[in-house]
Amino acid sequence: MTRIGFIGTGIMGGPMAANLAAAGHEVTAWNRSPEKAARLPGVRVAGTAGGAARGADMVIVMLSSGPVCDAVLLDEGGVLASMAAGSALVVMSSIPVETAQGQARAAGARGIFYVDAPVSGGEKGAKAASLAIMAGGTAQAFARVAPVLEAMGRPVHVGPAGAGQLCKLINQSIVASTLVAVAEALVLARQGGADPLKVREALLGGFADSTILKQHALRMATADFVPGGPAKYQVKDTSTALAHAATLGLDLPMLKLTDSLFAAMVDKGEGDLDHSGIIREVARMSGAREAA
Amino acid sequence: MTRIGFIGTGIMGGPMAANLAAAGHEVTAWNRSPEKAARLPGVRVAGTAGGAARGADMVIVMLSSGPVCDAVLLDEGGVLASMAAGSALVVMSSIPVETAQGQARAAGARGIFYVDAPVSGGEKGAKAASLAIMAGGTAQAFARVAPVLEAMGRPVHVGPAGAGQLCKLINQSIVASTLVAVAEALVLARQGGADPLKVREALLGGFADSTILKQHALRMATADFVPGGPAKYQVKDTSTALAHAATLGLDLPMLKLTDSLFAAMVDKGEGDLDHSGIIREVARMSGAREAA
Repeated sequence: MTRIGFIGTGIMGGPMAANLAAAGHEVTAWNRSPEKAARLPGVRVAGTAGGAARGADMVIVMLSSGPVCDAVLLDEGGVLASMAAGSALVVMSSIPVETAQGQARAAGARGIFYVDAPVSGGEKGAKAASLAIMAGGTAQAFARVAPVLEAMGRPVHVGPAGAGQLCKLINQSIVASTLVAVAEALVLARQGGADPLKVREALLGGFADSTILKQHALRMATADFVPGGPAKYQVKDTSTALAHAATLGLDLPMLKLTDSLFAAMVDKGEGDLDHSGIIREVARMSGAREAA
Repeated sequence: MTRIGFIGTGIMGGPMAANLAAAGHEVTAWNRSPEKAARLPGVRVAGTAGGAARGADMVIVMLSSGPVCDAVLLDEGGVLASMAAGSALVVMSSIPVETAQGQARAAGARGIFYVDAPVSGGEKGAKAASLAIMAGGTAQAFARVAPVLEAMGRPVHVGPAGAGQLCKLINQSIVASTLVAVAEALVLARQGGADPLKVREALLGGFADSTILKQHALRMATADFVPGGPAKYQVKDTSTALAHAATLGLDLPMLKLTDSLFAAMVDKGEGDLDHSGIIREVARMSGAREAA
């Protein structure tokens, strides 16, 4: 049993905190709207973020953005100031790599273990405790927190602090580029007189198979673009990944192309469509006879 | 039971013919080197291609290229001249779309049903009768041959004559572009200090998952580039797909980028490496500190 302070019990954080309590941990939660924390079974509610952190062996943060995380963690009377040396801080929000690295330094200065551990799998994965958890931090920090993270999904230690966030960017980049590759392929199928649905079916199980082929090619072939994952968030991720690659001195031409196609889609007012709607942009740019 | 003439019993055709015989069909085979046909259990051997085709309900062709197929099919005394009206011809070689369409016209002029049905799955899939079979032809032609094709794998009818070949090009194009997307991602991981093997592990099962992530990302992360599928064949496929797209009036920027990266890899003398070796080219082009 670990005493856990859980900061941010929204769509993702709520079921994650509930799963920790169900696994036998003592969870004290704080949320800006306290009624969202209060309805979680087995979870105590604190009046402040600092209050949730005080006396905890481990604090987990699932807030909406880097600046919001930084404010709650670093401000006077905030979470870090309330944590004891030797306790552990796990930030599971998706935030910039540099923000995670800064938090790791601030935590380290107080003798607090730090792990950045963004997730993939959405609300469904949060409820089912089947999230992919991409963890960055020292080996010692990861070893301390991994048994607790296992109550929410499958943690993998991918590198030092910030590497969890980098892994999340990599995940989103592969998703985006695979969407474009499959979209081009289905545009080619349709233009050449083949049935995109049947082409998808023929390719399942082979070297061209992917989660995108299974799920998103079906959406593309049937023009079902209700999100899902809106294109406007996809382009936010590819732009962040490109900018981070640039800080590392890397030029990634496929990611750049992918980002420009999603940006063009959003510019045309289609940012609220599912990201599989990129086939519409690909069809327009390719000069296809029929729109997708 | 169907009387089958089988033309071309090489690495792929040999086990395919044996599986047809094992399924209870009467198979008469022809191969340029007759000893390769003679060693197949339950398969009779004919002295000429025309001899294998004579009296068959269905002729299956698994030769090495479009020109070789055309010669054996269309030359005087060849396969088409030996086939009866109402019988069916299935060309399972990977050949140009236009070549398949021309063969379909020649077969149609003689009252012979035509299906182009290239495969994916390699020698392993041929032996296990688990090939993905991408079939193009009329609905009537496909219905006649599908029960026989099922003895070799999983046939899917993707469109009219030539569409099977188009589907195969699409398969290869998705594979090639996904390889580049995953290669860029692993270069970004390494340059950013994350462990490519661990990043791959974290991404398995999520939206970024694919056969390429499962199999080829492992090769990329461990620099295991023994083929497998040599890069020089990959670039042949992407170039053919691009050229075909151009005949349809399509401009596909991601496929063009992928093709240029594989062409650059082959130009550097690395065409005999596995196609996962594209990570070496991606690392060079991106300006990464470390070669892959």
